[in-house]
Amino acid sequence: MLAKYKNEYVLSIFMEEEKNIYDVIIVGAGPAGLTSALFSVRDGLKTLVVARTLGGTANSILKLENWPGYKGTGIELMKNFYEQLKSYPIEVIVDDVQSVEKKGEGFVIKTSSKEFGTKTLILATGTKRENKIPGEEKFVGKGVSYCATCDAFFFKDKTIAIVVWEDSSAEEIITLANLAQKVYVVCDKKFKAKRELKKVKKKIEIMNNSVLTEIKGEDKVQGLMIKDRKGEKEINVDGVFIVIGATPITEFAKKLKLKMNKENFIVVNEGMETSVKGIFAAGDVINSTIKGVLTSSAQGAIAAKNAEEFLQ
Amino acid sequence: MLAKYKNEYVLSIFMEEEKNIYDVIIVGAGPAGLTSALFSVRDGLKTLVVARTLGGTANSILKLENWPGYKGTGIELMKNFYEQLKSYPIEVIVDDVQSVEKKGEGFVIKTSSKEFGTKTLILATGTKRENKIPGEEKFVGKGVSYCATCDAFFFKDKTIAIVVWEDSSAEEIITLANLAQKVYVVCDKKFKAKRELKKVKKKIEIMNNSVLTEIKGEDKVQGLMIKDRKGEKEINVDGVFIVIGATPITEFAKKLKLKMNKENFIVVNEGMETSVKGIFAAGDVINSTIKGVLTSSAQGAIAAKNAEEFLQ
Repeated sequence: MLAKYKNEYVLSIFMEEEKNIYDVIIVGAGPAGLTSALFSVRDGLKTLVVARTLGGTANSILKLENWPGYKGTGIELMKNFYEQLKSYPIEVIVDDVQSVEKKGEGFVIKTSSKEFGTKTLILATGTKRENKIPGEEKFVGKGVSYCATCDAFFFKDKTIAIVVWEDSSAEEIITLANLAQKVYVVCDKKFKAKRELKKVKKKIEIMNNSVLTEIKGEDKVQGLMIKDRKGEKEINVDGVFIVIGATPITEFAKKLKLKMNKENFIVVNEGMETSVKGIFAAGDVINSTIKGVLTSSAQGAIAAKNAEEFLQ
Repeated sequence: MLAKYKNEYVLSIFMEEEKNIYDVIIVGAGPAGLTSALFSVRDGLKTLVVARTLGGTANSILKLENWPGYKGTGIELMKNFYEQLKSYPIEVIVDDVQSVEKKGEGFVIKTSSKEFGTKTLILATGTKRENKIPGEEKFVGKGVSYCATCDAFFFKDKTIAIVVWEDSSAEEIITLANLAQKVYVVCDKKFKAKRELKKVKKKIEIMNNSVLTEIKGEDKVQGLMIKDRKGEKEINVDGVFIVIGATPITEFAKKLKLKMNKENFIVVNEGMETSVKGIFAAGDVINSTIKGVLTSSAQGAIAAKNAEEFLQ
């Protein structure tokens, strides 16, 4: 994906020797990062975006229908975000951030090639899925989804599975069960949030102590291999939602001693302020119960407005 | 504007006699209302939108550049929102809501022609500006703006005025002052938030006990008539931000005894819940410090998600 981007976009890669000082540096260039950049630069702040890829995980959405006024792919929308941003005096660097340190009143960011100083920082680093399941990559957007809020509608009256933690995801399961004909709930331990699912219990089948081992199909998802204590079996489904295993990218956050929740998502208040003054966070990396392109984008806008206010 | 819309859109106007019961009725069809409708219907809720106009005050934005990935007019974007919504099984009625009453576990909405029942309600009624100033209507989007967050960027290095309450709007003034060459702050009493403006004081001129009486210009705003205790004078400006006088449309909210702040904006929590169970609110009508199409839209999404959760 990165390679494709590198050809498509003309990036402003700044390699000068002198140390640049910014009003705000944004790490990450998904919906939250690109929107916070738009709002920052429009407020007249000297803004730099550093990101490993442009578009973030939104690039993997093949059919995005809950961004108001838009129908298309995630990657197309992210291109639109980026094209709009390019019309402003902003710098965007595709590079790895290697460290972030507090220094005096601000922060120093080191990438693989350069150092930058900034007065405020917006972390919009998102999440990554490690340890992908066989077949997962092949079927992303073709039956494999990571976001019930985004994609539930595509599985109206279908049979689907959702792979969850033992004690959360009840909201997602209800959303899916309201639309789908049947929902398998696949949990590697004993699923605990059963009581909350009372109203939809006729539609769900809970599979405890079960692990998804493979996603099967030809052009799209048709079946799942599920392993439990008795052995392995195949179930027929039209899609699978994988809610677990998306870990927030918070290496810098840990070193900066930001407050995080037990799953390592960054804790922010309503204004997207973290526990360290001058550092804001937005998007999938924060402890928000509602995920998705729209809410991430709005969080980016709020982070930028409050970074601007902090600079006063 | 309404007449124009009525020709442009094919509306589903339902005039059957039987009483319809919905999962959610949304009052208002601006960014917040249309987005909450999109998220509701995609979650499988039986959804009705009742609104006086489609698009709301966003229709008056002639140059919308802080909706990520989009450049165009507000009315075009609102049309995109509506076109997308029409692809779902949703009902939209352009009509006046005459009353909203709590009845049993739900609510009854009366429009000028019909009654509807609903289990949950999302109020996205927005604001209206009464008592417009001579010239105001003519120059909307041509120098007259109601939103510093949205339009500040268009006045980079220009001279502008902002018409404010005595004790708020400091944030907007700072945003404008950071970009503009000069900002007149026009206040009908003695402006109190002076201390917060310390860092930008060189750029601002406060005009106390002053009232904007007329907006002048040919194709765009060129000057303002300002009346103070000594008489009336003209100042040269390239634009004027009118922050005061946009009152929330909360007649129903009052009757439903929703908690409101002193300016009559509806008080909501993070989840867009009002003080009455089953009623949510989003967009310009709520007590949010950050205004704009994007944040209103995200609030609509959050209201819809929480209305769905409430229904469980």
